[in-house]
Amino acid sequence: MEDLKIPSFEDIEKAHIRIEPYIHRTPVMSSSAINEIAGCKLYFKCENFQKAGAFKARGAINAVFSLKEEEAAKGVATHSSGNHAAALALAAMKRGIKAYIAMPETAPEVKKKAVAGYGAEIRYCKPTLESREETLNQIIRETGATFIHAYNDFNIVCGQGTAARELMQQQGDLDIIVAPVGGGGLLSGTAIWAKHEKPDITVIAGEPENADDAYRSFVSGELQPAVPPNTVADGLLMPLGRLTFKIICKYTDEIITVDEPAIVSAMQLIWERMKIIVEPSSAVALAAVIKRKEEFRGKKAGIIVSGGNADLRKLPF
Amino acid sequence: MEDLKIPSFEDIEKAHIRIEPYIHRTPVMSSSAINEIAGCKLYFKCENFQKAGAFKARGAINAVFSLKEEEAAKGVATHSSGNHAAALALAAMKRGIKAYIAMPETAPEVKKKAVAGYGAEIRYCKPTLESREETLNQIIRETGATFIHAYNDFNIVCGQGTAARELMQQQGDLDIIVAPVGGGGLLSGTAIWAKHEKPDITVIAGEPENADDAYRSFVSGELQPAVPPNTVADGLLMPLGRLTFKIICKYTDEIITVDEPAIVSAMQLIWERMKIIVEPSSAVALAAVIKRKEEFRGKKAGIIVSGGNADLRKLPF
Repeated sequence: MEDLKIPSFEDIEKAHIRIEPYIHRTPVMSSSAINEIAGCKLYFKCENFQKAGAFKARGAINAVFSLKEEEAAKGVATHSSGNHAAALALAAMKRGIKAYIAMPETAPEVKKKAVAGYGAEIRYCKPTLESREETLNQIIRETGATFIHAYNDFNIVCGQGTAARELMQQQGDLDIIVAPVGGGGLLSGTAIWAKHEKPDITVIAGEPENADDAYRSFVSGELQPAVPPNTVADGLLMPLGRLTFKIICKYTDEIITVDEPAIVSAMQLIWERMKIIVEPSSAVALAAVIKRKEEFRGKKAGIIVSGGNADLRKLPF
Repeated sequence: MEDLKIPSFEDIEKAHIRIEPYIHRTPVMSSSAINEIAGCKLYFKCENFQKAGAFKARGAINAVFSLKEEEAAKGVATHSSGNHAAALALAAMKRGIKAYIAMPETAPEVKKKAVAGYGAEIRYCKPTLESREETLNQIIRETGATFIHAYNDFNIVCGQGTAARELMQQQGDLDIIVAPVGGGGLLSGTAIWAKHEKPDITVIAGEPENADDAYRSFVSGELQPAVPPNTVADGLLMPLGRLTFKIICKYTDEIITVDEPAIVSAMQLIWERMKIIVEPSSAVALAAVIKRKEEFRGKKAGIIVSGGNADLRKLPF
């Protein structure tokens, strides 16, 4: 039976205390050039500088360190196209247990290398949800490892929410907070924390038009099936889960979809002006801000930069 | 008659006070992955996040704000392949005066755009020192603008030295400080400050093998003519000047040359592991550390990351 209990802000606080010894408190950066273009003040929470190169380390470490000893002893397993895989591998290494990863053959090289580098066991599968789940189930049958879902998981959502908690400590007076949405783990944790700490804050998500199941689910009020996604934002390919959908409906104000050229151009803007490496998924949030310039005019908005694991040999610009 | 007066540490302090309202106090970053590869602790002073994307803003702003009113009124002029041009254009804009730049047609697009963006007047020339100087002289005849040399200039050296001053405030216990050397402005300022603040610190420069006039001058004790440079490190193409040569001989302990594959691989390491964008010239310092691993083992070394103005459409890896 699926657990649809929504985490509270205390659950996020507890997660933060649990993971703090193992994660970076990432910096918040600004760019006057980008502020000028966007017509508002943007504060980028740089999870591209997080361990394993993405916010996913927060959730994975929280999930792995929440396991009981006897569960942990058998290891953890997941399927992931990249960042969650690396994060779970890192978390398992930190706890000294095994991680088994079902990974699509098509995942970026840089992500494959990272997972292997943390000592996880990779089993390659086809880049379909079916093949990923089948490979994962086989791993679990063989090893008894605990499945840690990439986002539709109570402890994962709690861990991801710690990025917003840090951001709001570092920059207290935000009017708006923006996160990209794929499976919805980051957005869920961000929204729970932000609405607790500042009830009148506006929580906005950016989503690729070509992977817009969250938008369609949000506006219809019913979890919509994903159509095969086709976006450069390779971290946002997964559909919402039932838990993340429930949280997002409760705490998110708006989902803004953006097209592919807008994502690529926002990514290039961040690289050129801020001199930081962000993956395409991270640019989706800035693309949403630029698309709805009027809505953001003169406001202070925090943007969660999800990660920096871009494949340097396949830049989209 | 050329002024070969060497700046003192007080001159660097005064420069720092003069420029502080206009520059960023850039962060110092570390990477446990790179520390492991290098076998020492490295602290990267991230001048890639500096205004105009490079340390050059420090020197240019110091030089422009050191001018008397009547000099400033006629504007400033220089020849530069990129970062000094953008920095001088920025500095002139901050003071509200004109900047005239003689720029090789072959300069990276991103640098041309930056210079134009700061409102400077660009005159294109051939990518030879002769053509650059001829174009510059014509500008000066026409306008009466003050020539601000990119590095062989007292005020420029003072400004560049402020990066080392900040770094040593931010990370006090360095055994070694490393900077790349092209014309020698950054290295000169760095060396003067470092040896003042910590007389037993080791000052090391990294230089491309394919543009090694500083190394040959340093070891022979005589300013050597440059042979046409041929390196990916496009910020290090200029030969030492008489002032910077004199300073470097006095305050630098060693110049380490590195080959092109080492520069490219160090650059890729910084991009992949630190998720920051640095230009090839900045990677020369890390390449020097990795080449002489034994010399750095277990030490704490500060690295001045010179800039982040890499042409994203022409990556060398």
